[in-house]
Amino acid sequence: MTNSSGSRYAYRMYNVKPSAIRELMKVTRQPDVISFAGGWPAPELFPAKEMEKVCQKVLKEDGAYALQYGASEGYQPLREFIAGRMSDKGIDITADNIFITSGSQQGLEYSAKLLVNEGDVVICESPTYVGAIGAFNPYLPKYVEVPMDEKGMIMEELEKALIENPKAKFIYTIPDFQNPTGVTMSGERRKKLVELAGKYGILVIEDSPYGDVRFEGEKLPPIKYYDKEGIVVYLGTFSKTFCPGLRVGWVAAEPDIIRKYVLIKQGADLQVNSLAQREVVTFAKMYDFDGHVNKIIDSYKSRRDAMLDAMEKEFPTNIKFTHPKGGLFTWVELPKHIKAMDVFEKAIEAKVAFVPGDSFFPNGGDKNHFRLNYATMNEEKIIEGITRLGKVLKTL
Amino acid sequence: MTNSSGSRYAYRMYNVKPSAIRELMKVTRQPDVISFAGGWPAPELFPAKEMEKVCQKVLKEDGAYALQYGASEGYQPLREFIAGRMSDKGIDITADNIFITSGSQQGLEYSAKLLVNEGDVVICESPTYVGAIGAFNPYLPKYVEVPMDEKGMIMEELEKALIENPKAKFIYTIPDFQNPTGVTMSGERRKKLVELAGKYGILVIEDSPYGDVRFEGEKLPPIKYYDKEGIVVYLGTFSKTFCPGLRVGWVAAEPDIIRKYVLIKQGADLQVNSLAQREVVTFAKMYDFDGHVNKIIDSYKSRRDAMLDAMEKEFPTNIKFTHPKGGLFTWVELPKHIKAMDVFEKAIEAKVAFVPGDSFFPNGGDKNHFRLNYATMNEEKIIEGITRLGKVLKTL
Repeated sequence: MTNSSGSRYAYRMYNVKPSAIRELMKVTRQPDVISFAGGWPAPELFPAKEMEKVCQKVLKEDGAYALQYGASEGYQPLREFIAGRMSDKGIDITADNIFITSGSQQGLEYSAKLLVNEGDVVICESPTYVGAIGAFNPYLPKYVEVPMDEKGMIMEELEKALIENPKAKFIYTIPDFQNPTGVTMSGERRKKLVELAGKYGILVIEDSPYGDVRFEGEKLPPIKYYDKEGIVVYLGTFSKTFCPGLRVGWVAAEPDIIRKYVLIKQGADLQVNSLAQREVVTFAKMYDFDGHVNKIIDSYKSRRDAMLDAMEKEFPTNIKFTHPKGGLFTWVELPKHIKAMDVFEKAIEAKVAFVPGDSFFPNGGDKNHFRLNYATMNEEKIIEGITRLGKVLKTL
Repeated sequence: MTNSSGSRYAYRMYNVKPSAIRELMKVTRQPDVISFAGGWPAPELFPAKEMEKVCQKVLKEDGAYALQYGASEGYQPLREFIAGRMSDKGIDITADNIFITSGSQQGLEYSAKLLVNEGDVVICESPTYVGAIGAFNPYLPKYVEVPMDEKGMIMEELEKALIENPKAKFIYTIPDFQNPTGVTMSGERRKKLVELAGKYGILVIEDSPYGDVRFEGEKLPPIKYYDKEGIVVYLGTFSKTFCPGLRVGWVAAEPDIIRKYVLIKQGADLQVNSLAQREVVTFAKMYDFDGHVNKIIDSYKSRRDAMLDAMEKEFPTNIKFTHPKGGLFTWVELPKHIKAMDVFEKAIEAKVAFVPGDSFFPNGGDKNHFRLNYATMNEEKIIEGITRLGKVLKTL
């Protein structure tokens, strides 16, 4: 049935397509498939036992509030906890700069809702997070992709894009262990990016879900650290350092921008789960939050090592891949004559899965990359999966 | 700072205003104010003690999944539980018809995102839920308001609106104990509404947050019960029958429509809190869900009685108000010469709060109504608050 206008759905829905990754998940959830596809953290690292005690404490001491409606900006002690952690990184910030979201995916979607008119330009890395493309797409932006090298977005290319697109709405970047490439933006470029954003009068959306999951090397300050004009909007989340199922993330920005996000939330879904917000703070009070993150880091580091070692051994030498210093992903580059989709089809037959690279390019057209997640599977499965994948690659 | 286009924010933000109710909340949260303003359920009815056991069970038996990412459509046993409860109302429905949302507010927002192009007509009751207006506004609809009487939306007026607006996108209705009026749509009109929607080829969004909170009188089937063509989208929630802080609601619709909602969720916030979804199902397994709802009904019924009795005694006789058979609200009509905002200002001085009626009319212009919530305060406070309010009204 359609009404007399001929189309039941809003035309933005033409730009809302199934998430490639989420659809793939359905295939890869068979128990005998070794999946390097999803961005799911390792479940054995969730503090389920501790969370029993956390929930009990929250409900016993604060049950009536934990189950009730709460403020759209978020639970005040959680805002303070996050502001404290960000201050520790040298950022000048208070609870008033923090807005709690249902994961940083919601931060992405609200950012587009706040900023993007149909046809507005969004400048992003090439490639970029497929979920950001999915969050932005309903607001019908145009994407201008900026090439990257091993130090992240290339600043000369960014400036060219800014000059060519004077009305661009924001620069979207994932500076730490980028999804999908695993590449980290250098400190120098972070500073330069803020300078360029200031010069060309454009907001920066800094998406840092993996920033705290660094295995080695010098800790770099967030892009927000260099921001003196209030032009960087930082998106954070507890999904990779704690528990994604709780859906707790945040936006850190100037209070006048935060107020706009709050208005969006009042209309969209009122607030984040009151109990979940208290669970995060109470876990941090009862246990050692950084100690928990360090456990995740240790585990993912071993898994990264296992995967990269296995790739060195099992992959043909004409296959290149990145060496991430943190996060969840490595990015594989195939020789021009091998197509990622052909590898994918044969890999699925061999019961190993990953995400072909094309969907990470908002304007499409890539055929020769794929993304591997080393965080979800244990070392044994990683070695077995990479061995299977190596065999597939050798046949092509 | 604005970029060179002159405006930092998307133009939809001109239509995103502070929620009157949420802003009022700030005043009314002072402990000595008796507030009949918010739509907040009575917190002493939350099963906090039981929830301790529920959380423990979920985390012990299913911790790795309860803290992990999950399916965008929702946790399968919760979808089945909801489908079962709706089937008990005579609706032909399975889990495939159910999509889990972060409260029914999110169902409203997604419905607009799915259906509304700028300038599209939304047909609604006059007055209607202020939060629905807030959810729809960013998508820049036009509102056509249909007058109500004591049996709900007047069908002749609805048909007139449908004829005058052949491209209208959907009819939005709250048939049960409507917010703000407390009015319930008659069974005959529910059937007629579905007939008219079918005849004019338009979807119906049936919003029923209070449907299960009936104090007395015959239970009426949801509008969805009469729907044989799959044109009714039903929005439900556990916020009024269980715990709003968990943010768990649902959409019930045809599977092809459900798939579109799922696509929106994949881009917007991935999924609802995995732990919260399990908490609802596990509570229902461990305890008597309907028994819990009956406790809420008993409590709210006493409070409604206390409020209506006090209003009969304390209000001047030229003040009219509705006699709701369920839900949380009564709707007060003032004589033309008394303005709700004047009453509000004097009431705040007398430390009693409510929501002036104007914001419930999407096209504005009302001066002579206000909404009272009888569910949050206990009988003693209700009587004291209504007495204060009666004094204010007598001075005007």
